[in-house]
Amino acid sequence: MKIDVCFSPALYPAYHNPENIVVVVDVFRATTTMTTAFHNGVKNIRPVASVEEAKAYKEKGWLVGAERHVKRCDFADFGNSPFDYTPEKIKGKEIVFTTTNGTKAITLAKDAFRVIIGAFINLQAVAGYCLARQRDVTVLASGWEDQINIEDTLFGGALVDTLVNSGKYQTGSDAAIIARGMWTAHKHDLMGYMEQTDHLSRLKANHLEDSIPYCLALDIAPVVPELHIEKEILLLQI
Amino acid sequence: MKIDVCFSPALYPAYHNPENIVVVVDVFRATTTMTTAFHNGVKNIRPVASVEEAKAYKEKGWLVGAERHVKRCDFADFGNSPFDYTPEKIKGKEIVFTTTNGTKAITLAKDAFRVIIGAFINLQAVAGYCLARQRDVTVLASGWEDQINIEDTLFGGALVDTLVNSGKYQTGSDAAIIARGMWTAHKHDLMGYMEQTDHLSRLKANHLEDSIPYCLALDIAPVVPELHIEKEILLLQI
Repeated sequence: MKIDVCFSPALYPAYHNPENIVVVVDVFRATTTMTTAFHNGVKNIRPVASVEEAKAYKEKGWLVGAERHVKRCDFADFGNSPFDYTPEKIKGKEIVFTTTNGTKAITLAKDAFRVIIGAFINLQAVAGYCLARQRDVTVLASGWEDQINIEDTLFGGALVDTLVNSGKYQTGSDAAIIARGMWTAHKHDLMGYMEQTDHLSRLKANHLEDSIPYCLALDIAPVVPELHIEKEILLLQI
Repeated sequence: MKIDVCFSPALYPAYHNPENIVVVVDVFRATTTMTTAFHNGVKNIRPVASVEEAKAYKEKGWLVGAERHVKRCDFADFGNSPFDYTPEKIKGKEIVFTTTNGTKAITLAKDAFRVIIGAFINLQAVAGYCLARQRDVTVLASGWEDQINIEDTLFGGALVDTLVNSGKYQTGSDAAIIARGMWTAHKHDLMGYMEQTDHLSRLKANHLEDSIPYCLALDIAPVVPELHIEKEILLLQI
């Protein structure tokens, strides 16, 4: 089987295969946050691509997480920090969620065989999900407004490395080789590598860097949120 | 000043800046071949995006280089091997040129401040061109049918490294950091790194791997082809 990494939503048409498992990743912070929410007992999450949709849900009384350009939208109950989604606030609840890049990527991939949510905090759980289903895998990096980012590509490399090391997967293209090379070069000092990135600068500028070590921790939330579509509504569940 | 690397033509809208120098690269083999042709004395090259345009020129009596999917088009005088463009055949001549990915990237970038042609064989000449003009730089990797490839990204990393080491440039985004990391990790064994790539497999499958060491040689053709547009016709000249 093959695993490939799509470095940006803008590249998805060139990497898209409807038969694949697509792993959507937005390390800082949408997919880390959603995975955390499930680990903390949320019942389900409705990812929506636009702020307008999120606001409409809020007006109907839903709990809403909404972020644009790293900041919480003022109408929302939660922002995009994983620390917002504590068991006390979300256990057993249904929430609506929109972020700058991550939820757009989920919407883009929605017609794939399966769409799941990946982050460093559920890396091995995602690998196990893929190995159990014996399917080709595409990691879809959410990027930043269609630009490539280091952290999502690096997660792609980590999953490539894990699946190739299992002996069951091969790299699907040069992109997977590049991503795996980043992971093997930097896996022992993720934080040091991140110090160089655009997104860390953005988060620091908004005093939001407190969640970075959490976002880079491996396997502390071993759940795999999976996309379902019910009557045209996107719904993440575990 | 900033230097950035656009990993695929499909990402160009996210990296495009009309004020920048755009360095189009297609290491295997379009930009290596065009640079070679200029080094061997060609007068100018008209890059055209489609086979149909190239064929129409051929019917009007022009010398034409044309390739699709690594093979020479049957109507053409030359394919996409740098070894086709010897001084005996091209010195002082005007030629028309189309390839699978490289000439499309030139067409895409044509409205930038300047568009130039880069490859490992003219790396330092390209760096000198940029430093002399004191402009932000975007490397546009031609890729393979919008997928990322290692060799063009690696050239981007080499140019990032050269310009950043000059003290005059900074990396423009995470993409530039990723590409530079590839170059610093593999610059001492480019051929070993290439053995893993998709494109080397394609070239080998068509017995076209003879030009690979040439395409990876540094600074053996120190000329910088530059795009001009005359009455809507694209024209490369040095």
